[in-house]
Amino acid sequence: MSPPSIAQQLAAKQREISVAEFFERNRQILGFDNLQRALLTTVKESVDNSLDAAEDARILPEILVEVSKEGEDRYRVAVTDNGPGILRREIPNVFARLLYGSRFHQNRQARGQQGIGISAAVLYANLTTARPARITSKVEEEEAAHVLELSIDTQKNQPRVVSEDVVLWDRPHGTKVELVLKAKYVRGRQSALEYLKGTAIVNPHARIVFVEPDGTRVTFERASTELPAPSRETAPHPFGLELGELGYLLKASKRPSLVEFLTKDLQGVSARTAREVVASVGLRTGDSPSGIHGEAQERLLKALHDAPLIAPSAEGLSPIGSMLIKRGLRNVLGELKPEFFAPPVSRPPKVRGGFPFMVEVGLVYGGGLPSDQAVQILRFANRVPLLFQQGACAITGAVSNLDWRRYGLDQKGGSGVPVGPMLVLVHVASTKIPFTSEAKEAIAEDPELDREVTLALQAAARHLRTHLSRKSRREFAGDKFAIILKILPKLAEKTSQLVGKPVPDLTPVVTRIMDVVNVESRLLSDPKGVRVPVEITNYTPRARVLELFVEVPPDLFANAGFSPAPDGTDAALGRAWWTLPKLPPNGRAQVAISFPPATDLDTNDLDWYVAGIDEAHVLGADPLPGDWDVRLPRTIVEAAEQAAADAAAGGGTSEEEVDYDAAEASAHAADEE
Amino acid sequence: MSPPSIAQQLAAKQREISVAEFFERNRQILGFDNLQRALLTTVKESVDNSLDAAEDARILPEILVEVSKEGEDRYRVAVTDNGPGILRREIPNVFARLLYGSRFHQNRQARGQQGIGISAAVLYANLTTARPARITSKVEEEEAAHVLELSIDTQKNQPRVVSEDVVLWDRPHGTKVELVLKAKYVRGRQSALEYLKGTAIVNPHARIVFVEPDGTRVTFERASTELPAPSRETAPHPFGLELGELGYLLKASKRPSLVEFLTKDLQGVSARTAREVVASVGLRTGDSPSGIHGEAQERLLKALHDAPLIAPSAEGLSPIGSMLIKRGLRNVLGELKPEFFAPPVSRPPKVRGGFPFMVEVGLVYGGGLPSDQAVQILRFANRVPLLFQQGACAITGAVSNLDWRRYGLDQKGGSGVPVGPMLVLVHVASTKIPFTSEAKEAIAEDPELDREVTLALQAAARHLRTHLSRKSRREFAGDKFAIILKILPKLAEKTSQLVGKPVPDLTPVVTRIMDVVNVESRLLSDPKGVRVPVEITNYTPRARVLELFVEVPPDLFANAGFSPAPDGTDAALGRAWWTLPKLPPNGRAQVAISFPPATDLDTNDLDWYVAGIDEAHVLGADPLPGDWDVRLPRTIVEAAEQAAADAAAGGGTSEEEVDYDAAEASAHAADEE
Repeated sequence: MSPPSIAQQLAAKQREISVAEFFERNRQILGFDNLQRALLTTVKESVDNSLDAAEDARILPEILVEVSKEGEDRYRVAVTDNGPGILRREIPNVFARLLYGSRFHQNRQARGQQGIGISAAVLYANLTTARPARITSKVEEEEAAHVLELSIDTQKNQPRVVSEDVVLWDRPHGTKVELVLKAKYVRGRQSALEYLKGTAIVNPHARIVFVEPDGTRVTFERASTELPAPSRETAPHPFGLELGELGYLLKASKRPSLVEFLTKDLQGVSARTAREVVASVGLRTGDSPSGIHGEAQERLLKALHDAPLIAPSAEGLSPIGSMLIKRGLRNVLGELKPEFFAPPVSRPPKVRGGFPFMVEVGLVYGGGLPSDQAVQILRFANRVPLLFQQGACAITGAVSNLDWRRYGLDQKGGSGVPVGPMLVLVHVASTKIPFTSEAKEAIAEDPELDREVTLALQAAARHLRTHLSRKSRREFAGDKFAIILKILPKLAEKTSQLVGKPVPDLTPVVTRIMDVVNVESRLLSDPKGVRVPVEITNYTPRARVLELFVEVPPDLFANAGFSPAPDGTDAALGRAWWTLPKLPPNGRAQVAISFPPATDLDTNDLDWYVAGIDEAHVLGADPLPGDWDVRLPRTIVEAAEQAAADAAAGGGTSEEEVDYDAAEASAHAADEE
Repeated sequence: MSPPSIAQQLAAKQREISVAEFFERNRQILGFDNLQRALLTTVKESVDNSLDAAEDARILPEILVEVSKEGEDRYRVAVTDNGPGILRREIPNVFARLLYGSRFHQNRQARGQQGIGISAAVLYANLTTARPARITSKVEEEEAAHVLELSIDTQKNQPRVVSEDVVLWDRPHGTKVELVLKAKYVRGRQSALEYLKGTAIVNPHARIVFVEPDGTRVTFERASTELPAPSRETAPHPFGLELGELGYLLKASKRPSLVEFLTKDLQGVSARTAREVVASVGLRTGDSPSGIHGEAQERLLKALHDAPLIAPSAEGLSPIGSMLIKRGLRNVLGELKPEFFAPPVSRPPKVRGGFPFMVEVGLVYGGGLPSDQAVQILRFANRVPLLFQQGACAITGAVSNLDWRRYGLDQKGGSGVPVGPMLVLVHVASTKIPFTSEAKEAIAEDPELDREVTLALQAAARHLRTHLSRKSRREFAGDKFAIILKILPKLAEKTSQLVGKPVPDLTPVVTRIMDVVNVESRLLSDPKGVRVPVEITNYTPRARVLELFVEVPPDLFANAGFSPAPDGTDAALGRAWWTLPKLPPNGRAQVAISFPPATDLDTNDLDWYVAGIDEAHVLGADPLPGDWDVRLPRTIVEAAEQAAADAAAGGGTSEEEVDYDAAEASAHAADEE
């Protein structure tokens, strides 16, 4: 017999690789790169599972996370929840078998989708300490809890029950996972604490208690008792459906006709569109779905992609919502007292690869945020904070590719993460998040996703630019105010003394130099309530008739008190407006809004607008946007027209054009009067 | 019967997930994020397999890659190799089953390790075009080739043979893979062409022909006919071996005794260390490996980690080597004419997690490389270029964390990818590369790996710093030369004319001002050969006896001609040296080295050193390093001692201390003589 050929030698080495063996060897892919991250990933997988289970069962989550030291580089992680519990027969597979789970085949938003996470943590614990996982779980309909000790047979990817017991447990239902693993405990960046903090921001309905190895107890209290709207399973949408996927769906369909398949096994296809599509590719509406093969499938898919489909349903999605994003950010950043919270942006749902997704963005600026460092990016996917792989994430990509210089930030060359006292929060919610790896720490690049994140960032950034330009105009004007209102009277006084004349009235000089109407609001909070007084001063050289408008967050409007009573309101949109008394040069008017004690509000929550004067001559308010459907008094309409005409004719004095000599002459003239 | 409880409802949804289903849904993890990348990944997986197979069979690889357009967004990729071929019975599993392969269980360096890549490409092709993969393979011992059309049953992760045939194929052995997939063809960044170019850099033994969709044919000719040293399978090293892994090894071991297990199933444990370790944990040398359990395993592992082990064998590794790195870089960057190629750095093998690895770094600077952009980083893992996920890669992390400002580059804040006309090549070779995902595009963070990459980068960066400082000294001196050698004579001439005196000898002035010995080499290349003349000029005010040394790449030394004949050589190290004739002020000597025509050489390949003078007074050469074991003539030793004494006494005139008045006075004195 001749010796085996090279091909035979190579063939002899070919073998099946179990998925558990694969991940044991490549545990970095699952987020077990190093000891610090191993601890975080273990906490994360357990807590994500607890949150998913509680939400599925419509229970307000209550989660206890305990980390304790068991030896050098060895920790015990115990996570106990009040979820529905897991049936005895499912416990081994759920915790000790990779690629086993309930959410992979569902088309809806969930934290866990892969059926890998918690089993990976068990695998890692087994590998590094040779200790089994200990699972305690009780379901409501049983009297006692099951306690199982589990390890994974990695060559077969099958659970091994090491020991089993039944115990009484003083709670109606819930699950406790205990793992002993090689790990390192840290606080700070990329720690379990940071993950739990991030989780609390975007899951304000959860109460989480964290006990650190030194016994420190950190509690994240529930900020809302409302469960997120349940995410429902939805059918796949044809946009982005691949030919092979359509083939599987057709083959697996139990629908009697092709039209029923298109309208019921897919979403977004109306009965009419379905009939048109079927006819256009030469098929019949009553054809059996499983009888469509090869070329016909290809033609069908192409026709679907070209057809007028209904946008994908967002029913499978559970966004955080603007209010909770703002509240979450304020909880975490409160002590830094940021000067500006941009109104959070929620983009409408879109679809990629047949799966709906939506993007939410929050943006915070100034205060105690460091101004010489790269902007902080808080990334979230399906309400889970992403703490690693920032550089590989499509969210970071979108932030880096935006030219932030246009919005007033420092950014070398107009790309890369900008530098400045800013924090952006980006949440991507989807029935399928395209993670770059099983560790679920970064979202893969995708043109549709990138577009949505970019649009949301731009919307938030535009608010920032408005804020910064207002701020700089205000600062510029403030400097001018300081000079004019303090120095000018002193100069006048000294000069008058020297020449032995009475001090002149400086109003005409001041108003000609300033030539703006100043709208200044403050926020006063005390136990009796929150009050926002606003002062409107006419520093222009002529009398002004103005309309003042305010926009209040609609949910706060019902409890707001206005003084004086506004001339009009739109409670649904949270709007109120006043026709101010005619203001002579240097004249002043005041309005005020009051809210109940402890209202969660800051000055940026109120937007002020004016009509009757052109933009260049107002500080502290913007011109009324064109989309306000408000009927203005005749006097205001006329004033506005006059202002527009003046502006068009280059009339009035702009800040740059002030003629100081003329102003002075006029001041003397006033003096002589 | 009561309705099912929540726990029962949830349990009913639990299901096994096939690994093929998982990756079909998460194809971005495998590198099929978008149409452009899908094409690249398909080419890459095929070519990597071809290279691995050819190397295993010790065949110089010859690979034909053809991409042709089949329709809108649809391409055919065909990769044909001259490898050993695959036995008929293995073809279905190799190409249409995920997690099946020959290299996963081997502890040696290979491009493919996961048994996923090519099957993932088949999966993607099936999914997007519903077309089977077509595989043609012939092994040497059979007359004909087998042609199989394959698809993957994703729910079972099993191959399905769609059709089968036997054909004559006009080659002794080889494999051809044909896939039709949804894709987009591009050139430029992150393209198939860039991948093949990178592959050619680090695999100079391969000949690769690429036919683009428009028929353009790009050939990467073989730059070396030497196959890389074969990487051998090695046993795992105890450093970083986890407890669970030790457990599996003990259980699976067929060795009769514990000492045999330690010395034969592991590497790095000597018989003596094995006996000491066994005794120290209270076991016996003759114990059966499979009889060691629980606590005993833990003690054993701890003792092994603390024991004096032999460093891991690098036998499993196949580095590129300095010479080929340099040659590869020159092939690719030749037209940019970089001013500096740092000597490539090869770090000694290290170990992480029981697997040996080593790091190689090449660095190129200047010339046509863009000076206002981020430094280019060429990343390679086991001779495969990494084109995506740069931001997520440990290599990029190491580059970013180095403070390049110390080495003369521009880097904001001392971290991040620096900016400048530089390119760094980093190759990590290992029996197991810790990739961040199955797409194998980024290496996960790891402290040991990071340390090695950093050390290698620093070594290369030090050469860069030397180059830059020499360059700036040379430029500074050049400016001075220009002024002194051009203007001074003219000044002298004019002045002499005015005062009616003869033009004085300027040598004393020039040498006092310059006060350096200048070593200047050039490279002249013509059809007759490559010649490097070197001119040594004594611009110091006193006579000098010097020894000049040169270091030539050892493989070029044998064919080098020296003129005049050197006073000593060390061919093995590529060194030669001359005792120069005594050089008076302004005196000049010349030596030259010549090489055969078309020798691959640039001026940076030759390093010049001198002895007999201290560092501050030489330009264009460095002081002889202390590790040269050369016996110097007495005159040189004395001159060197004198120079050292002068330098210590602050004697001699440094550039900064030139006393121009004194120099001038001396010039006049010379004049009066």
